[in-house]
Amino acid sequence: MSGTSISIVEVGPRDGFQPINEFIPTAQKAAFIDRLYEAGIRRMEATAFVSPRAVPQMADAPQLLEHCATKPGLDVQVLVPSRKQAERALAADARHLAFVLSVSPAHNQSNVLRSPRESVEDFRAIFAMLPPGARVRLNLATAFDCPFDGPVEPGETLELVEALASISSDAEFCLCDTTGRVTPDRVGDLFRGAQQRFPEIGRWAFHGHDTYGLGVANVLAAFQTGVGVIDSSFGGLGGCPFAPGATGNVATEDLVWTFAKMGVATGVDLERLLGAADMAATLPGACVGGRVRDALGAHSRRSENA
Amino acid sequence: MSGTSISIVEVGPRDGFQPINEFIPTAQKAAFIDRLYEAGIRRMEATAFVSPRAVPQMADAPQLLEHCATKPGLDVQVLVPSRKQAERALAADARHLAFVLSVSPAHNQSNVLRSPRESVEDFRAIFAMLPPGARVRLNLATAFDCPFDGPVEPGETLELVEALASISSDAEFCLCDTTGRVTPDRVGDLFRGAQQRFPEIGRWAFHGHDTYGLGVANVLAAFQTGVGVIDSSFGGLGGCPFAPGATGNVATEDLVWTFAKMGVATGVDLERLLGAADMAATLPGACVGGRVRDALGAHSRRSENA
Repeated sequence: MSGTSISIVEVGPRDGFQPINEFIPTAQKAAFIDRLYEAGIRRMEATAFVSPRAVPQMADAPQLLEHCATKPGLDVQVLVPSRKQAERALAADARHLAFVLSVSPAHNQSNVLRSPRESVEDFRAIFAMLPPGARVRLNLATAFDCPFDGPVEPGETLELVEALASISSDAEFCLCDTTGRVTPDRVGDLFRGAQQRFPEIGRWAFHGHDTYGLGVANVLAAFQTGVGVIDSSFGGLGGCPFAPGATGNVATEDLVWTFAKMGVATGVDLERLLGAADMAATLPGACVGGRVRDALGAHSRRSENA
Repeated sequence: MSGTSISIVEVGPRDGFQPINEFIPTAQKAAFIDRLYEAGIRRMEATAFVSPRAVPQMADAPQLLEHCATKPGLDVQVLVPSRKQAERALAADARHLAFVLSVSPAHNQSNVLRSPRESVEDFRAIFAMLPPGARVRLNLATAFDCPFDGPVEPGETLELVEALASISSDAEFCLCDTTGRVTPDRVGDLFRGAQQRFPEIGRWAFHGHDTYGLGVANVLAAFQTGVGVIDSSFGGLGGCPFAPGATGNVATEDLVWTFAKMGVATGVDLERLLGAADMAATLPGACVGGRVRDALGAHSRRSENA
């Protein structure tokens, strides 16, 4: 395994809360963000700038961004699906955008209502409008597998990476397993292939789901290729409303536990994180996952040397 | 990844049923064995010869062994914890014994009421009494981690392998993660170290638990080193009664699904296996696990290309 530290991006406040129908009061969301920060989380996808009509849960994005700005050292990224929403986010003082587009045309159409090529042009416009000091990460959904069309050819993903890298290779490129159906061998192969073909891209990330129990295995496969940034969600919250059966991101606590056992630093305190995850599990409509929370709850958390 | 096929040892009828308090009628156990066989399972830990007073659930071992003998091509192994029980098993026509002993003295004492050295002497006696055509596999419990003493040093495990290999290197050596707390890096390291140090041992196997969500990841780490035999339990049934919190073997269906995606043949039909697992989930007192059963149940099993 490579590296002695890993950067975890806590995506629960966005990817985890988004599919929950009942509106979580802004103060409660802010309290979750506080607990995650107190647990040592220093990078977070805190919210999304999307149509409040389409996703009412994310309607309080500006307020949450303002809340996050009070936390020293917290790198706050916000999801944006379009040029218009990127403008909204930047106007609200967002300085780290996560622009999402899908490799699969069918998924991109469902998710952001345009073709991948149109999304690439959106990225070109967004990149051009970035103020000094602002950054963008690219979330390539269905980089491995599409809920509608099944397995995605590596060549298709690499072609999209190429189009985006021709606009900016400074962005962080996050390859996302949207369905949770990819296996570690393919995760490793695609990252190795991508790193070899695009040496100009310096930052890679992986985002996976644990739907079929491969969440941690896939993260480790990415880590083994040198990927240093991993998305995960506390309590295993999450799932994509447009990917049927994708019932949860890989759980942050599963990663923190695993990496600790491997001697890889995450900077996150497991006990405090578990406290936040336990709290999340009580949210009405929350779809929780992961294994470590149950395993440590089964006997005594306090006696566990994580 | 190495190899284009893998041999799965279905241990549910032993490891999965054993911790269930309420006696499962022998005919029902036989029906499970039938369904697993019909799903393509060709190697099974079907029962255990242990004290019927200590483990009443396994009291029907001779009858189940007789039932299994009617199935062409089924390799039936039975767990034995001592010389005395090995004698009982052989008298009942068992021809494939799985002798269990622990690397950790504390666990061996709890599990089989003797020291590891005494267990090694038991193996010497068992090996000497094997009739022609009979085989033995060695289950080295706590090969990585002990529920009582925590992490086990690789040197301790290798020392026990050495003592056993000096009696017979023809046995299959199964390194068991009893607690589910080992990580894939350590699984890979130990198997590589063992294979290098004991080239005379031709058959290695891995037995893991999914308690912390690392079941499949650990199996793949073993597979990557060339291990060709993997234990698993349908429905993720199982757990060790003497390992608190070890709440389930890696689920056979999770492995069958994963290996199919990787193009590695298991010989097992996923649909039929899921049928057996669904049936197991209805057993009173059953502790089920795994992810694939839920994931495929969540939408339509029939539409899934495993």
